[in-house]
Amino acid sequence: MSIKIGIIGIGAIGADHAKRITNSLTGASIVALNDVNLAQAHAVADTLQLNAKVYTDAHELINADDVDAILVTSWGPTHEEFVLSAIAANKYVFCEKPLATTAQGCKNIVDAELKAGKKLVQVGFMRPYDSGYQLLKQAITNGDIGEPLMVHCAHRNPEVPESYLTPMAIHDTLIHELDVLRWLLDDDYKSAQVVFPRKSRYAHSQLADPQIVLLETTKGVRIDVEVFVNCQYGYDIQCSVVGEEGIANLPEPQSLLIRKDAKLATTVLTDWKQRFIDAYDVELQDFIDGVKAQKLIGPTAWDGFAASIAADACVKAQESGQIESIEMPERPAFYQ
Amino acid sequence: MSIKIGIIGIGAIGADHAKRITNSLTGASIVALNDVNLAQAHAVADTLQLNAKVYTDAHELINADDVDAILVTSWGPTHEEFVLSAIAANKYVFCEKPLATTAQGCKNIVDAELKAGKKLVQVGFMRPYDSGYQLLKQAITNGDIGEPLMVHCAHRNPEVPESYLTPMAIHDTLIHELDVLRWLLDDDYKSAQVVFPRKSRYAHSQLADPQIVLLETTKGVRIDVEVFVNCQYGYDIQCSVVGEEGIANLPEPQSLLIRKDAKLATTVLTDWKQRFIDAYDVELQDFIDGVKAQKLIGPTAWDGFAASIAADACVKAQESGQIESIEMPERPAFYQ
Amino acid sequence: MSIKIGIIGIGAIGADHAKRITNSLTGASIVALNDVNLAQAHAVADTLQLNAKVYTDAHELINADDVDAILVTSWGPTHEEFVLSAIAANKYVFCEKPLATTAQGCKNIVDAELKAGKKLVQVGFMRPYDSGYQLLKQAITNGDIGEPLMVHCAHRNPEVPESYLTPMAIHDTLIHELDVLRWLLDDDYKSAQVVFPRKSRYAHSQLADPQIVLLETTKGVRIDVEVFVNCQYGYDIQCSVVGEEGIANLPEPQSLLIRKDAKLATTVLTDWKQRFIDAYDVELQDFIDGVKAQKLIGPTAWDGFAASIAADACVKAQESGQIESIEMPERPAFYQ
Amino acid sequence: MSIKIGIIGIGAIGADHAKRITNSLTGASIVALNDVNLAQAHAVADTLQLNAKVYTDAHELINADDVDAILVTSWGPTHEEFVLSAIAANKYVFCEKPLATTAQGCKNIVDAELKAGKKLVQVGFMRPYDSGYQLLKQAITNGDIGEPLMVHCAHRNPEVPESYLTPMAIHDTLIHELDVLRWLLDDDYKSAQVVFPRKSRYAHSQLADPQIVLLETTKGVRIDVEVFVNCQYGYDIQCSVVGEEGIANLPEPQSLLIRKDAKLATTVLTDWKQRFIDAYDVELQDFIDGVKAQKLIGPTAWDGFAASIAADACVKAQESGQIESIEMPERPAFYQ
Repeated sequence: MSIKIGIIGIGAIGADHAKRITNSLTGASIVALNDVNLAQAHAVADTLQLNAKVYTDAHELINADDVDAILVTSWGPTHEEFVLSAIAANKYVFCEKPLATTAQGCKNIVDAELKAGKKLVQVGFMRPYDSGYQLLKQAITNGDIGEPLMVHCAHRNPEVPESYLTPMAIHDTLIHELDVLRWLLDDDYKSAQVVFPRKSRYAHSQLADPQIVLLETTKGVRIDVEVFVNCQYGYDIQCSVVGEEGIANLPEPQSLLIRKDAKLATTVLTDWKQRFIDAYDVELQDFIDGVKAQKLIGPTAWDGFAASIAADACVKAQESGQIESIEMPERPAFYQ
Repeated sequence: MSIKIGIIGIGAIGADHAKRITNSLTGASIVALNDVNLAQAHAVADTLQLNAKVYTDAHELINADDVDAILVTSWGPTHEEFVLSAIAANKYVFCEKPLATTAQGCKNIVDAELKAGKKLVQVGFMRPYDSGYQLLKQAITNGDIGEPLMVHCAHRNPEVPESYLTPMAIHDTLIHELDVLRWLLDDDYKSAQVVFPRKSRYAHSQLADPQIVLLETTKGVRIDVEVFVNCQYGYDIQCSVVGEEGIANLPEPQSLLIRKDAKLATTVLTDWKQRFIDAYDVELQDFIDGVKAQKLIGPTAWDGFAASIAADACVKAQESGQIESIEMPERPAFYQ
Repeated sequence: MSIKIGIIGIGAIGADHAKRITNSLTGASIVALNDVNLAQAHAVADTLQLNAKVYTDAHELINADDVDAILVTSWGPTHEEFVLSAIAANKYVFCEKPLATTAQGCKNIVDAELKAGKKLVQVGFMRPYDSGYQLLKQAITNGDIGEPLMVHCAHRNPEVPESYLTPMAIHDTLIHELDVLRWLLDDDYKSAQVVFPRKSRYAHSQLADPQIVLLETTKGVRIDVEVFVNCQYGYDIQCSVVGEEGIANLPEPQSLLIRKDAKLATTVLTDWKQRFIDAYDVELQDFIDGVKAQKLIGPTAWDGFAASIAADACVKAQESGQIESIEMPERPAFYQ
Repeated sequence: MSIKIGIIGIGAIGADHAKRITNSLTGASIVALNDVNLAQAHAVADTLQLNAKVYTDAHELINADDVDAILVTSWGPTHEEFVLSAIAANKYVFCEKPLATTAQGCKNIVDAELKAGKKLVQVGFMRPYDSGYQLLKQAITNGDIGEPLMVHCAHRNPEVPESYLTPMAIHDTLIHELDVLRWLLDDDYKSAQVVFPRKSRYAHSQLADPQIVLLETTKGVRIDVEVFVNCQYGYDIQCSVVGEEGIANLPEPQSLLIRKDAKLATTVLTDWKQRFIDAYDVELQDFIDGVKAQKLIGPTAWDGFAASIAADACVKAQESGQIESIEMPERPAFYQ
């Protein structure tokens, strides 16, 4: 049995996922496409030689009889509408981040899913599918380093365009840490604070860069995340978990060790797309397998909601300079 | 279009490949199985829920109309017969190493393939498909370290059973280096020498362990391979290419970096199966894709033949203590 | 010419310094000793075969005609008195930390030195003499990583006794970072904040451990120091300077890289005395050379004063949970 | 008591040692100098403000009443003569390598010393004094890696001048490994073989570069040393000891770890003088302490003799392409 998938939004990430499903993953095929740019949808169908129908209306695609599951990879502000529509149609839906552009939007999805009484939504947080983070999770779970007490992280990009503004350090960058650290620690956030170091001369005038985000969890774990999006030297994701008995560091990406020009060096990636490229495959395969098994196990709507609430508090903390509390509603038993 | 595959020999490696094709790879399905132990073939078919016919005769499987391509994963001494049979049937065949148990057997296959006038055979050398070796190959090809002059290698296992005898250090262990280094350097071997260091007390009485194999290539590159199969500490594959301008080292397998118990450590694998597990997937997918494209690009029968000739010279060198020349016949244009 | 040194306080650190001067360093000899425990002073004189007079009164030692320079290595609360006495005698004095137990005490010394009009005091901060920190300083000064924006540090001990209480994380542990980071960045502190992660189960009831101290400098550099004194795994000093163009990490102490027991590991020290043992030699040689040249260039009384003020603010921040400002008086031209 | 030292030969290394003794080491002073270039001797005496007599005749210096010990740092071919003269005068002598330019010359010194019945000679092999090799020795002695079975080494220089010819790879470069590995393994050499990889295009026409020297010890340990003196990228000394239970690697020289320009890198030295600069201090201090204690414990005349015999066999192996046996005379009890 092959899962029949419809994709809404066939831009860069949508086309990548289409390619993935068609060429690398197993158990699914694309039967339906929709995009605000119909020509783009047709072009992707042609390039990948898909036997897929192109819909002018996303809701029609969602409700098509031969569509088993939906990928929402359209423009962020449309996510909530299409995910709610998929839930209404009682269909599995994989939604790229953000699940919704507001916490309330995420809440609406959570409520709809609760009402549907079935986990239908997987959010496109791919980091928990990264082999390095999985090793880290395993080490924590095995008790290899004792109980986690602190996490030191860095999220660095070589540079960002002028369109990247201060709050995007939270919504576009930190959001990945907000998701993966909850999963890693099996914990929730309690407070956030943001401090602004001296600004890099490579940061444009509308951007405070770097930033340091300090988070506290309900278990008392203290997290610091350096967000530095004009660090020049590379795309670099660091995560070091300090436990009661030891410290585990996220592995560096695979690289040759080269002796040359008076250096003994490994390579640091510069293109973020390379860093989690394998994780995207695993993530989407997991969605397909989950649909097949009628049991999604990846990041839930609740996870999307939780990340959204934490992100809002971080933006508030950016503005206030204060320690802002993060008020997370009680998690329904449904999402335990 | 899905490639229909028949598997001859459904022991450990055959069953692994069957699982791989069924669950992880794309573009192929298993339609036929054969094994000297029919019950085992049926058991695998059941476990993997294959819609596959179990043949009592391997040649019948090879010649079955609905079989597009064959995997030979039976006992080594049977490989030559089944590969020749597949060539006779004009079918693509993936043969686990060894291609044949003698250089003459390999030669017979090469001759048959030459006569067939079409590359039908891929040998199961998986190391060229390892992402680390691919980075190394790329660095050499890019000229990152200048022309290669020397290669320092180690192939270490934690321990071997009593059945592992001195010549197996060549045929079962070094054989992987013999293959991958030819590919890495795009070169052939010219001579071999083996020296025996002081024997480890962990080596049983019928085994000289460790050994150091010294190879010379036609381009003059000097290779030393430490083969140490009772090294105790882990399964460890090292490869360091010394070029005119720099040195590139094969990456260590992915691992957390952990600070604990007065050590700053990464993990060394102990199970060889983990080391190249991803490479097996890539290798077999490459075979499937090659069959689909009617153009195999993986290790050829000639590569199997060349490794076999080099291995024979190494065993001779083990016995003689001398530098033994490796006489490689001229490579036919067909295999360029 | 050999500098004739008198030592006040001949306990562990005093005896170590005596040994150092006698056996390893050049240009100085010990001619006078004083200790509250006279027997101990005599014992050290005997062990090291010193030709030194043992004084019952420290001030008498300070004022002895044949004493060129003084080492104050007595109990902390006596430092201020003896340093002031040395300044009054117009003699060079090396004082182990703390310079004084209060900021006011440090201020008194600064004032006395200003009045004397000559730099006579060197404070026993040894980290700037560590070869690793010197490489770090050099990299910053050379502009190898651009302007520093952030510093991530850790100061970890395997364990501490019951007598080690929460404020000692500042006065006994962080004090080294407070000194060395000012020197490293050529900067002063502006504010401090302390956050308390979940407490380690290895910390006794009177100690909050770990702690994270957040510092802001006048240039806007943001520093985070993890102080974790029951980390179990070792004595570990980390310092990572994030600049506009790159990041430089303090080197790990020299260690073999060992492959054993399924680990690829270097050794982490467990005894703090090993970590800076070479730096103590360099530090004290620098004092001797400075006395000889009539020009001290090591950590000044002002540096001791500045560290003391910062430490007080950190303790206040421990208690208040707030961001506490650090009010540093303007630095007199004398100390530029 | 200060040891009064006379130095014969005050070129680069002699002047360095003079500076060392005067400024960094303890327990000795220079009272006499000799050089073929008298002006140079006077210049060094002036620069270092030595209270030293300049001798026109080396033997006169050796026999001067106020000279306790001699440093022979003159041109290699004169070493034997001056060392023999020092032995005849019953004075301690530190001789830079080579002890003599021929094995017979070394033998003459050994015989003279045996006749004198007192260890008077220390040879200037500094590697056993390197802190990294000392850690390696300690690990072996502690049994941390089990019995050594193999040693993989590399000795690489960025480049050499035209005057550096093929045999110098042995006499000037490998000589250090020949010495330090005997000490490290507490073993002697039994045979040598040299293989010549493809030549680097950076090597001039009179030099075969790189070379691989294969050594066998009496205990059966197999050593391979890559000598590559135009490796371009740096001055790099590698030593990896493979034992029955683990592998220990010589530490890399201290370096910052820097993230910059898409690399995560440490620095490789380019100047050989930096690599063992600390070892020179320790070596010479050990000589001074040995003279003071009337008991030298550093590299002996026998060690110089043994290295010389091994070097001769290696040169013979360079020429013959064969495995050459190394015939080491029985070690007299005097040198046990």
